[in-house]
Amino acid sequence: MNKLRIRAPDDFHLHLRRGELLAEVIPHTVRDFARALVMPNTSPQKIFTGADASTYREEIMHIASHSPGGEQFTPLMTIYLTAATTPEMIGEAARAGVVAAKLYPDGVTTNSQSGITDIKALFPVFKEMERSNMVLCVHGEVGDHRIEGLERELHFLPILEEIAHGFPGLRIVLEHVSTARAVKCVMNLGENVAATITAHHLVLTLDDVIGYSQASEGKMQPHHFCKPVAKFQEDRRALRLAATSGNPKFFFGSDSAPHPKHTKETAEVCAGISTAPVALPVLAKVFDEERKRDRLDAFTSEFGARFYGLPLNEGTITLQKESWIVPERYGSVVPFYACQCLPWRVVSRK
Amino acid sequence: MNKLRIRAPDDFHLHLRRGELLAEVIPHTVRDFARALVMPNTSPQKIFTGADASTYREEIMHIASHSPGGEQFTPLMTIYLTAATTPEMIGEAARAGVVAAKLYPDGVTTNSQSGITDIKALFPVFKEMERSNMVLCVHGEVGDHRIEGLERELHFLPILEEIAHGFPGLRIVLEHVSTARAVKCVMNLGENVAATITAHHLVLTLDDVIGYSQASEGKMQPHHFCKPVAKFQEDRRALRLAATSGNPKFFFGSDSAPHPKHTKETAEVCAGISTAPVALPVLAKVFDEERKRDRLDAFTSEFGARFYGLPLNEGTITLQKESWIVPERYGSVVPFYACQCLPWRVVSRK
Repeated sequence: MNKLRIRAPDDFHLHLRRGELLAEVIPHTVRDFARALVMPNTSPQKIFTGADASTYREEIMHIASHSPGGEQFTPLMTIYLTAATTPEMIGEAARAGVVAAKLYPDGVTTNSQSGITDIKALFPVFKEMERSNMVLCVHGEVGDHRIEGLERELHFLPILEEIAHGFPGLRIVLEHVSTARAVKCVMNLGENVAATITAHHLVLTLDDVIGYSQASEGKMQPHHFCKPVAKFQEDRRALRLAATSGNPKFFFGSDSAPHPKHTKETAEVCAGISTAPVALPVLAKVFDEERKRDRLDAFTSEFGARFYGLPLNEGTITLQKESWIVPERYGSVVPFYACQCLPWRVVSRK
Repeated sequence: MNKLRIRAPDDFHLHLRRGELLAEVIPHTVRDFARALVMPNTSPQKIFTGADASTYREEIMHIASHSPGGEQFTPLMTIYLTAATTPEMIGEAARAGVVAAKLYPDGVTTNSQSGITDIKALFPVFKEMERSNMVLCVHGEVGDHRIEGLERELHFLPILEEIAHGFPGLRIVLEHVSTARAVKCVMNLGENVAATITAHHLVLTLDDVIGYSQASEGKMQPHHFCKPVAKFQEDRRALRLAATSGNPKFFFGSDSAPHPKHTKETAEVCAGISTAPVALPVLAKVFDEERKRDRLDAFTSEFGARFYGLPLNEGTITLQKESWIVPERYGSVVPFYACQCLPWRVVSRK
C-alpha cells in the first residue's frame, strides 16, 4: 500500500507568531491540521491572560480564514505562567476558553531574575488549574545555567514528579520530550501525565546539529538547532519506540518554530525548527521505517485529543508514498528538510 | 603586577591557508609568535610531500616578510598522511626540513572511502618517521559516523596507545585534546607522547556552542564551532589543570582556523575558530584566573620546543592587564571574542 489515510490530525504544540510571520506560516498548519495548541510566548507581547488569548485567537482566525483549510481550523489557546499569575487569572482564562497554561524553564530557575523562584509558589495556580480542568504544559528543562544543556531535561524530571504527585487531578504534558530517561519517567507516572514528541526529535541527533553526522558532512547545521537540543542515538530510539508504541501517553506536538532565514544563518542562531510544512510527511517516513504505519493515526489524531478531552476531528488526510523535494524556502523561512527529498507527501484532505 | 613577560612563543598547531586568506591572517601570527607548526590540509591542494611543503613554506615566507615580525618568523612544515604515503616520501620530506606528519581521522576510519582502512598499514611509515626523527601529529577523533561525535576522541585513545607502544621512539602529539579522559591517557603514556591544547578549549564548553551557556543567551554560536567540539565542564577543568600544571607533555597549539564570515554565518557552518589574533590574551586570562601566571611561559614557549627538539626562541613578548574590545572583524574573518572584552593585551615584543 502506497497510501496512508489518517483522521484529520492535531498539532499539540505550535508556534504561530503574530503579524506578518503569522500570515506567512499559518497556511501550512491549517492545510494539514484540524486543530493546533498555540504557544503563548509571542513577541513582543506574550499571552498572559484570557483576554490576551482571545485577542490572539481572533487574529489567528482572521488570518486563517483566508487560507485553504482555515475555515475548519480551530486554534487551541494557551497562556504563559509567570510569578504574577494568580488563581483568579486561571479562572478568567478558563472562562475565555483557554485550554492550557505553559510553564517555561525560567519559571523554575532558582536564580531567575524575573521568574518564579520556587515551584511551590505556583501550587495555588496549579490547584485552580486542576479545578478549572486546564492542562499544564511544561517546557521540561531547568533554567539553571550551572546544569549542562544536555542534562537540563533530566534535572527537570523530579520537578515533574513533584507536580504530578501533588496534583493527581491536574493533566500535565511534558512538551517535546527529548531523552530516553524522560520517556521512561512519563511512562512510570500516572495517567495525568503525558508527553508530546516532535517530528524533528524522531529523526535528528545532536550529531546532526554539531556536524558529526554523515549527512552533515562536517558542517554545523543551524536549521537543526532547537531547544531542547536533539540528544543521542539511544534517546532518538526511545522516542521512536514511544511514538510508535500505541501508548496513549505519547502524542504529536510539532513545536514548529519558524524563524526568518536571517535569524538562523547568522552569528547568534535562534532556537527552533520550522517543521509545520513537512510534519506529516516526516512522521509518515518515521512510522513507515518503524513498520508501524497503522499507528500513525492514533499518534497524530487520537491520543492527544483524548488526553485534552476534545472530540476527535471529522475528515481525513491522505498521504502517498511519492518522493518530493522540499522547497528551499517558504516565504522568509527555511523549512525542515529544505532542498532534501521526502518519500511521503500529503495528497488530499476530505 | 599588571605585566606578564614571556619568551617569544610557539604555536604548535596552526592553519594558515593559502593565497588571499593567508595574506590576511598571517600578520596576527607573526606579530605574536616566533614559530608555528603549519597544518597541511590546505585547499584545494593538500601538502603531501616535502616538495609541496617547500613550495608552501616559500609562499608563507614571502607573504610573512611584508608583515611586522615576519622577518623573524619560522614556519614549521608538515605533510598530510594518506594511504599513498610511503617511507620514501617520509625520507624526502625529512630532508626537505618537514618536522611533522599529520594523521587525520579519515585515515583511521574503517569505512573510509579514500583513506587508510587499517592503522597497521601505516606502520612502515611510522617506522621511517621514527628513524627520520619526524613527529607524528594526530587529529585524535575516529572518523566512524556510528560513533557519536562527543565520543570520537575517546574511541581514538586505543589507537593512540597502540601506536605509542608500537613505536616508543616516535614522538606523537595528540592535537587539540578536548576531554578529561584523553588528558589522563596522555599523562599515562610514555615520554614520547604529548598533547597540544588550544586557547578556545580552555574557555568554552559545548553549552557555549549549542546555546545553553548564560553568555550565549539561548542562541547557537557558529563562531564557537570547531572540531573536536568543546565538551563538558569536567573536560574543560581537566584541560585547564593540564595546561597550567607545569607538566611538559602539554603545550600550546592554537588550531586557529580562519574561515571567511560568510562560511560561518550560514546554513552549513565550517568548523574552526579564528583564535590567532587573540590567543595570547586569552591564555593570559586563563592562567591569571587559575593563579598560574608564572607557568604561561613554559606552556607557550618552552615545553613544545623541547618536545620537538627545537632551540628556545630569542626575545620576549609582554602582556599587560588592560581591557580592550576585540574588533568585530579582521578582514573577512570574525575572530574569537569578537566585540567582547579581554582583560589582557599584548603590548610589546623585544
